[in-house]
Amino acid sequence: MKRIDNFKSIVDKYDIIFFDAFGVIKTYQGLVPGIGKTFQYLQEQGKEYYIVTNDASRSPAQLAEAYHKYGLTAITADRIVSSGMLTKEYLDLQVQDGIVAYLGTPESQHYIDSSGLHTLPVSAVNNSNIDKVNAMIFLDDEGFDWFGDLNKTVNLLRKRTIPVIVANTDNAYPLSVGDVSIAIGGIASMIENIVGKRFIRFGKPDSQMFMFAYDLIREYRPVSKKQIVMVGDTLQTDILGGNKFGLDTVLVLTGNTLPKDVETRITATGIMPTYICDSAVVDLGGFGF
Amino acid sequence: MKRIDNFKSIVDKYDIIFFDAFGVIKTYQGLVPGIGKTFQYLQEQGKEYYIVTNDASRSPAQLAEAYHKYGLTAITADRIVSSGMLTKEYLDLQVQDGIVAYLGTPESQHYIDSSGLHTLPVSAVNNSNIDKVNAMIFLDDEGFDWFGDLNKTVNLLRKRTIPVIVANTDNAYPLSVGDVSIAIGGIASMIENIVGKRFIRFGKPDSQMFMFAYDLIREYRPVSKKQIVMVGDTLQTDILGGNKFGLDTVLVLTGNTLPKDVETRITATGIMPTYICDSAVVDLGGFGF
Amino acid sequence: MKRIDNFKSIVDKYDIIFFDAFGVIKTYQGLVPGIGKTFQYLQEQGKEYYIVTNDASRSPAQLAEAYHKYGLTAITADRIVSSGMLTKEYLDLQVQDGIVAYLGTPESQHYIDSSGLHTLPVSAVNNSNIDKVNAMIFLDDEGFDWFGDLNKTVNLLRKRTIPVIVANTDNAYPLSVGDVSIAIGGIASMIENIVGKRFIRFGKPDSQMFMFAYDLIREYRPVSKKQIVMVGDTLQTDILGGNKFGLDTVLVLTGNTLPKDVETRITATGIMPTYICDSAVVDLGGFGF
Amino acid sequence: MKRIDNFKSIVDKYDIIFFDAFGVIKTYQGLVPGIGKTFQYLQEQGKEYYIVTNDASRSPAQLAEAYHKYGLTAITADRIVSSGMLTKEYLDLQVQDGIVAYLGTPESQHYIDSSGLHTLPVSAVNNSNIDKVNAMIFLDDEGFDWFGDLNKTVNLLRKRTIPVIVANTDNAYPLSVGDVSIAIGGIASMIENIVGKRFIRFGKPDSQMFMFAYDLIREYRPVSKKQIVMVGDTLQTDILGGNKFGLDTVLVLTGNTLPKDVETRITATGIMPTYICDSAVVDLGGFGF
Repeated sequence: MKRIDNFKSIVDKYDIIFFDAFGVIKTYQGLVPGIGKTFQYLQEQGKEYYIVTNDASRSPAQLAEAYHKYGLTAITADRIVSSGMLTKEYLDLQVQDGIVAYLGTPESQHYIDSSGLHTLPVSAVNNSNIDKVNAMIFLDDEGFDWFGDLNKTVNLLRKRTIPVIVANTDNAYPLSVGDVSIAIGGIASMIENIVGKRFIRFGKPDSQMFMFAYDLIREYRPVSKKQIVMVGDTLQTDILGGNKFGLDTVLVLTGNTLPKDVETRITATGIMPTYICDSAVVDLGGFGF
Repeated sequence: MKRIDNFKSIVDKYDIIFFDAFGVIKTYQGLVPGIGKTFQYLQEQGKEYYIVTNDASRSPAQLAEAYHKYGLTAITADRIVSSGMLTKEYLDLQVQDGIVAYLGTPESQHYIDSSGLHTLPVSAVNNSNIDKVNAMIFLDDEGFDWFGDLNKTVNLLRKRTIPVIVANTDNAYPLSVGDVSIAIGGIASMIENIVGKRFIRFGKPDSQMFMFAYDLIREYRPVSKKQIVMVGDTLQTDILGGNKFGLDTVLVLTGNTLPKDVETRITATGIMPTYICDSAVVDLGGFGF
Repeated sequence: MKRIDNFKSIVDKYDIIFFDAFGVIKTYQGLVPGIGKTFQYLQEQGKEYYIVTNDASRSPAQLAEAYHKYGLTAITADRIVSSGMLTKEYLDLQVQDGIVAYLGTPESQHYIDSSGLHTLPVSAVNNSNIDKVNAMIFLDDEGFDWFGDLNKTVNLLRKRTIPVIVANTDNAYPLSVGDVSIAIGGIASMIENIVGKRFIRFGKPDSQMFMFAYDLIREYRPVSKKQIVMVGDTLQTDILGGNKFGLDTVLVLTGNTLPKDVETRITATGIMPTYICDSAVVDLGGFGF
Repeated sequence: MKRIDNFKSIVDKYDIIFFDAFGVIKTYQGLVPGIGKTFQYLQEQGKEYYIVTNDASRSPAQLAEAYHKYGLTAITADRIVSSGMLTKEYLDLQVQDGIVAYLGTPESQHYIDSSGLHTLPVSAVNNSNIDKVNAMIFLDDEGFDWFGDLNKTVNLLRKRTIPVIVANTDNAYPLSVGDVSIAIGGIASMIENIVGKRFIRFGKPDSQMFMFAYDLIREYRPVSKKQIVMVGDTLQTDILGGNKFGLDTVLVLTGNTLPKDVETRITATGIMPTYICDSAVVDLGGFGF
C-alpha cells in the first residue's frame, strides 16, 4: 500500500482506468474540483476509461448528460457501466415473457423496458395480473409510495416464487454535507429478511460488475487485468470488489473515506487498496492550476 | 414434547397462564372461536392469567377495550403486559430530560408520554431542537410518512448518539388470510444496519419481557417459574423466549404455525415447546361439540 | 455521559456495585494494580458488590479461590454471578432426565453436574446413548479435541432436536498483551450456523444475567434498579446489557476499551455508558498511593 | 421450471454442460450409478463439459485421478474448474512476494505453491517470519491441529493486515448417509467474525467461478451463455450462482436436495432452477436394465 501524491503517476502506469462516480468524479456539490484535467490528460495520453457505478436510477445516456451539463463532455454513454446494465442482461437471458414489476422512477425503468418485457410499477400489480409477474426489480428509492408499495412488494413476493433483482446494492447515499438517503439496496435487504427468500444483487463489490466492464473492452481488443486500475472512494465496494477481481486499486479521499480515518478503516476491515491518493485529480504542475 | 387434545388439561396443571395475543386469543378475523370459554374456566378455577404481547401500538387500556368490544371482558388493562411498558420503564430509569423522538401513531405515544419527558414525532424534529433529542423510540409502523420520516430518522441517528429503543421486535404481522404488513421491528432493523449503531429491543423472545410479567406477580404473592406456562403461536418469540426464561410452553396452531408444518419447523429450528395443542380453547365437554 | 476522575465518587453514589471480572478487576497479568483498595473501601462503607461474569469455565468457589491466591479475599463465592449459574437454573427447570452432553473441561462440568442429570463429554456420546441425550451445553473452549468433538457435536445436533445452551457468549478472550483465544461462544456460533438451529445464550449483554443477580439481592432485602451501578470494560456486553436492564453504567479503560478509542467506539456503536472512569480503583488520597 | 424425466433431453438442448461434482457425479459411496453413460453420450455427441467445483483440497490432476480410479476416464484435469484455481489467479495478480500462510493438507497447497510464492502452514508462522506473511489462505479442513492452528490464525490476522482468501465457501460437506463434516468455509466464517475483517471468498455461488470456466472456453472458441447449462444438487450454490451468471440450470436430486423437499425448498428460498431432473444420468433406453 503506497501513498501517491499525484494521480498522474497512476494514470501513467496503467492503460485502462475504471472510475467510481460518486465521491470520485462528483459529489453532492457537483464535480470534484479539477477533475476535468484528469479526463483531458487521459484523452491526450490515449488512455481508456470507464465509469463503473452502482447507479441504476437512470440510463447511461441520462447519466452522461448530467456530466455534460457540468462541462465534463469526456464521459459519454458508452463509457458508463452501471449495475442496471447487468439487470438488463439478466432479464434478456433468464426472463422470457410476462410482467416485470419494479420499484423506482420512470427513468430507472429504462433498463427493464428495453428487454422487451412488459414492465409495471409495483403499484399497478393487482389480482388480475399478479400471476403473470415473472420477475421483481429494485431499481431506485424514489418514484413510489413507500408505505403502500413496500407492503405490496412483501405480499407479492410471498405469493410468487420469482427471481428478485436488486440493481443497486448500496444501503445509503450522500445527499449533502451532513445527510444521507436510504438507498434501494437497504430497502431490499429489509424485504429480503421479511420474506426469507434470496435476492440477486448486481453492483460492486460483486465481481460480475467488473467482469461486465472487462468484457466490453475484450470485445474490441485483447486485455489483461494487470493493465487496469480501479479508482474508488469506498473500501467495501470499489476497493474490495476491484481487488477480488484481480485489479490494482486506488482509494481516493474525496468521498466516503475521510483522510483522518483511512488507516483505522483499512486496519479494521482488512481491505487494502494498492494505492491511496488524495483525489483522482491529475496535477500537471506548471504555473497554475 | 406432548400433543395435548384439550387445553383444559394444561390449565389444570398450572397456576398462572401467560397468553400471547395475536394468533392465540384473536386473529385478523376477530376472537378465536370459543376462546371465551377458556377465560370463563380460568376465572372459575381461580387461575391467574396475563396477556404478554409485543404490541406497543396502543396503551393497555386501549388494548383491553378492543377485547371488550368483542365481548371478552375478562381481559382488563391490568392483565396486559406489553413491550411498550418496558420502554416506559427504561425511559423512567435512564432518560432524565429533553425530547424523546418517536415513530408511531398518537396512540402508541402513550408509553413515552407518561414518562414526563417531552415527546415529539420524528417529523417535528428540526435544527432548533435536534440537540435536545435524548432518545429515539420505534413504536408502530403507522402514523408517519415512511419516505420522509425514515430518512429523517437515519440522519437524526447519525448526528445524535442517543439510546434507540425498538418497542416491538416483530418483523411483520398478519393482516388478512394471505397478507402481512411490515412491522416497526423490520423497519428498525433496516435503519440499524444503515447507521451501524446498536438498538435496544424490548419484546419476546427477550427475557426482560417475561421478567416484567413475573415481577408484576411477585409484587403481591410468592411464585415459582414452575407454576407458570406460556401459550403462543410462534416458535421464535413465544416458545423460545418462554423456554429460555425457564417456563413450560404450549404451542397452539391457530396462528403463525400451521398444523401441517409443526414437525418440520420444530426440527428445523430446534425450538421445542413443552406441549402442542390445536388451540387455547378449553373444551368442557357436555352435550355437544 | 460524564468523565469521572476518581472511582470513589461513583461508589459514594450507589448502594450496590456490579463488577465485570476480566478487564476490570483482573487482566491476563493478574489483579488490576490498586483494585484491593476498592474492595476495602466498599467493605468499610458497607456497600454491596457482585462480580457478574460470562465465565462458565469454573465454579464460583474455584473462581473465588483464584482471587484469594492474589490476596483479594473480599471476593467470596457468594459474590459471584456467572453465566454458568443460569445454565444450571435452566437445566433444573427444563431438563428432567437423561444425558446432558457438553464441551468443556471437567471443572466447567460443575454447573451441569449439580443438576442431578447424567453428564457426558461429547466425546463419550455414541450410538448406544445418543437417544438419551436431552440437552447440549457449550461450557468452555478447553478440555476436548476440537477436530473430533466439534464435528461430533454438529452430527449430534443434526440427529437430536434438543435444547442447546451456550454458557459463555463471548467470541474471544484476551490471553496476553497481543494475543486472544477463540472462546466457546465463537465456536457455538459457527456450529449454530452449520446446523441452522437456534441456541440459547446466557451471559451479558442478555438481561437474564442481570436479573439473576438482581433476584439474589431481592431475596434478602428490597432494592431498586436506581441503587445499582454496573462497572465494565466492554461496551457490547457490560454497558449495553446493564443499560438495557435499566442500570447506570461505568466504562473503565483497563481492559477491552483503550483510552484512545473511547470516543470513536461510543459514537460508532451508539452504546453510551453513564460514566467513563480510567479504572475501578478507589483513590483515597492521603500521602500516596 | 420444468420436470424432466430423462437427462438426455437436457444434453440435447445445450452445447456445453457444467457439472457440480459432489451430489451430481459422485457421492460419499462412489460414483452416482449410471453416470458413466452420461459422459459416454456427451463424447459421442461432441458436447463439451466441465466440472465446476468448490473443492480446493487437491489439484485438478489429483481430482481427475480419483475419477479414473472409479473408471470414469472422461474427466481429465483440463475439464476441472475448482475454486482453488481462482485462488491461484488471485495470488498471481495481487501478491508479489513474501510468505503465503495456509490452513489445509499438503495436497491442497498445490494451488498456492505454483504461484512462486513461499508457502507455509500456519503452524510454521512465528515471530521471526510473521512480518513477511502477505496473504492467508483457507484451503481445507484437514492437515492441521484445529485448537492450536485456528487460535494461531486469529492472532496472525489481528497482527497483519493482509488479504485473506477462502478457497472453499461451503460450510459443511457430507461424509456418510447420516453424517457431515465441518468444511473450511464454516471455519473461515467463525474466524472472520472474531477478527472483524472482510475475507475474499472464491467458489459458487460467486459468479467469478462461472466466469473463470466461461473464459476457459472463450479462449479457444466463441460462446454465448445461452449455450451452457449448469447441473447441480444444491440450490444455494449451483443453482443460485449459475442463474445469477445468466445460465440455465438443472437441479438433480442425487445429493443435497431430497425429492420430498424440492418444492418446499424452492418456495422457501425463492431459488428456481430452469429444470428439475431425478439425476444427471442419460437414459438411452434399449434392451438393458
